[in-house]
Amino acid sequence: MKIIEGGVCAAKGFKAGSVRCGVKESRTNDDTAIIFSECECTAAATYTMNRVKAAPLYVTMEHLEDGVARAIVANAGNANACAPDGMENARRMAKAAAQLLGVAETDVAVASTGVIGQRLNIECIEEHLPELVLEDNASEKANRAIMTTDTKPKTAAVEFTIGGKTCRIGGICKGSGMIHPNMGTMLSFITTDCAITHEMLTDALQENVKKTYNRVTVDGDTSTNDMCIVLANGMAGNTLIEWQDEEYQAFCKALNEVNTRLARQIAADGEGATKLVTCTVKNSRSEEAAERLAKAVVGSNLVKAAMFGADANWGRVLCAMGYSKAPFRPEYVSVAFESAAGSVAVCDKGAALDFDEELAKKVLSESEVTIAVDVNEGEDSATAWGCDLTYDYVKINGDYRT
Amino acid sequence: MKIIEGGVCAAKGFKAGSVRCGVKESRTNDDTAIIFSECECTAAATYTMNRVKAAPLYVTMEHLEDGVARAIVANAGNANACAPDGMENARRMAKAAAQLLGVAETDVAVASTGVIGQRLNIECIEEHLPELVLEDNASEKANRAIMTTDTKPKTAAVEFTIGGKTCRIGGICKGSGMIHPNMGTMLSFITTDCAITHEMLTDALQENVKKTYNRVTVDGDTSTNDMCIVLANGMAGNTLIEWQDEEYQAFCKALNEVNTRLARQIAADGEGATKLVTCTVKNSRSEEAAERLAKAVVGSNLVKAAMFGADANWGRVLCAMGYSKAPFRPEYVSVAFESAAGSVAVCDKGAALDFDEELAKKVLSESEVTIAVDVNEGEDSATAWGCDLTYDYVKINGDYRT
Repeated sequence: MKIIEGGVCAAKGFKAGSVRCGVKESRTNDDTAIIFSECECTAAATYTMNRVKAAPLYVTMEHLEDGVARAIVANAGNANACAPDGMENARRMAKAAAQLLGVAETDVAVASTGVIGQRLNIECIEEHLPELVLEDNASEKANRAIMTTDTKPKTAAVEFTIGGKTCRIGGICKGSGMIHPNMGTMLSFITTDCAITHEMLTDALQENVKKTYNRVTVDGDTSTNDMCIVLANGMAGNTLIEWQDEEYQAFCKALNEVNTRLARQIAADGEGATKLVTCTVKNSRSEEAAERLAKAVVGSNLVKAAMFGADANWGRVLCAMGYSKAPFRPEYVSVAFESAAGSVAVCDKGAALDFDEELAKKVLSESEVTIAVDVNEGEDSATAWGCDLTYDYVKINGDYRT
Repeated sequence: MKIIEGGVCAAKGFKAGSVRCGVKESRTNDDTAIIFSECECTAAATYTMNRVKAAPLYVTMEHLEDGVARAIVANAGNANACAPDGMENARRMAKAAAQLLGVAETDVAVASTGVIGQRLNIECIEEHLPELVLEDNASEKANRAIMTTDTKPKTAAVEFTIGGKTCRIGGICKGSGMIHPNMGTMLSFITTDCAITHEMLTDALQENVKKTYNRVTVDGDTSTNDMCIVLANGMAGNTLIEWQDEEYQAFCKALNEVNTRLARQIAADGEGATKLVTCTVKNSRSEEAAERLAKAVVGSNLVKAAMFGADANWGRVLCAMGYSKAPFRPEYVSVAFESAAGSVAVCDKGAALDFDEELAKKVLSESEVTIAVDVNEGEDSATAWGCDLTYDYVKINGDYRT
């Protein structure tokens, strides 16, 4: 497997584009993107588990019910959640894209991100979407069009081989705030030219989001709009993947690579974040327990604030593990902080270690920091990703709407 | 029932005192407090549900096993959690207090608060505790001695009548950070001169903490040291409360008044907080559902940051309800923001309302704000308390340990 450029346009037959429709008057850059496949795709998606779901999610569910699609249209600036005329406007958005692309309305998936509770200005989308031009290399352009408080685009792509055929998977996503995905993520769009059945694609996606996007937390708030869509157009020419065979595993491995890279980028670019905080938990009695522990650690406001202050306050790590509801024995736990600047063991079998505070400060001042936990009682492990809690998070969210 | 002064010394026969032992060198004010009853008390307590429990909790559990006690000794500056010699030092602390007071070591409850993972300097407590002087009106003095990042003492007391006898319940507590109590709270000490059996006292406390302290959240982090202790010395001379009769109900009502007042004070003085945020949920299909919804709202970082910015971002309220895992119908929900400055309805039956942004700003700029949610589908209700998320929370916790 090779890491390549090209994001959502890396796979054969996929184009993208974006345009400024004026969804939010104050926004001067593009706010609406389209991802398009030259031929029909097998499609799978996961959606937020939030009981309050935005209208575009229901429309996308309907349109993907037959397992096929051709395009995704997405806007930033308005979530179209709890909004007047929500369903009607989400449908009109799909229709506008379908007309531009010359495909059936039911072959278009719709996604939105932005403020909740305000009517989507669908008229401006209908007016300006026809100006959108599809290009072969517009992945980053489309990516930037769906950014809200994100500070950078988030992309990943890989090339791998199935039965002698070169296949590619690429994706773009947005994240930043209200990020605590549950069976989906805040808008992640993946394309692949691999030939794979709808059933296999769905299985691969469902399994993989649990270990990637669903292990990211920025602020513990699960959005109303989370969505991850994969389109597979089969243009790589590989023999159709129909079973959970070796080729399916190769596909899953590549998908995992792309999704893990995107998930890490979401965590690192969490609202106000200055650093990516990874928690690895090993030697747990089950993967589920390890996952709960790792997520509790990266989700703790107190751990996050300590990471911002580069403070090796490992008591907060144990405290967060303690309320995670996962089984473990405090007296078995060892903790170390690691980064490019080195590694510092701070707790051994539940007991404090004397450690070099200056080195710890240096380790925790890097832009990527790992909290390495060993629970010393089993063989399973899990990794979760988050970021630090900063003044800027408060600033961004103290007045996001206005 | 009458609200009175006196805190933990309000009830007959209770004295308190504090002294500076030097638990944390940098702290210049008192750091160790004692609450003492002239005669034997019935005692009940609740403890953190965190799997990682501090040593003093285990010692207090042992000492209260027989349902009686005479005193509480508590220190600030060190949590004695995951700390070397934890159990031994907690026992030595009880012993030092017992010697000073001339009571059995097993009649002393022990509590600690402060940094996790460092050895408690028990020697300085043993050296200086004998200097502590008990007084009739030292509730606030004792209260201040157990403060960490709290900005003010937290106290409440009531007077009520049982069978013609005047009874009192009073308490002090500390809170501020790592506040998301689960079956207890970060150090709450309640005294009463009411005569009540151990069984009834335990029932009353267990039931009541669920509706008071356990409905407070500052940062979602459940501490390793949460503890709520009630001492009842019977000096009011009322007929012993032995059953869940009318007199028991009167006692519970008074206890609820004291605990609710303390819980609100903990929320209002959350680390970095500028305001108390209350969420009331009414017309829910169960009290449990209402409680989950209310706690999710006051626990949401995004809601908290919006409250800091006095931003009427009600979409975040619905979003938090949506991921609370409690049943409700988004399309039935109405939301209003209320405070001393007025009331603004922002959402009616799941749909956005046009509202006066300027008035909303004024309403949300008060020091006590209520998010009033009506789920319009049942008859049960619940209230939860929290605070806003501010720059100061990040500042306090970015470098608390050093």
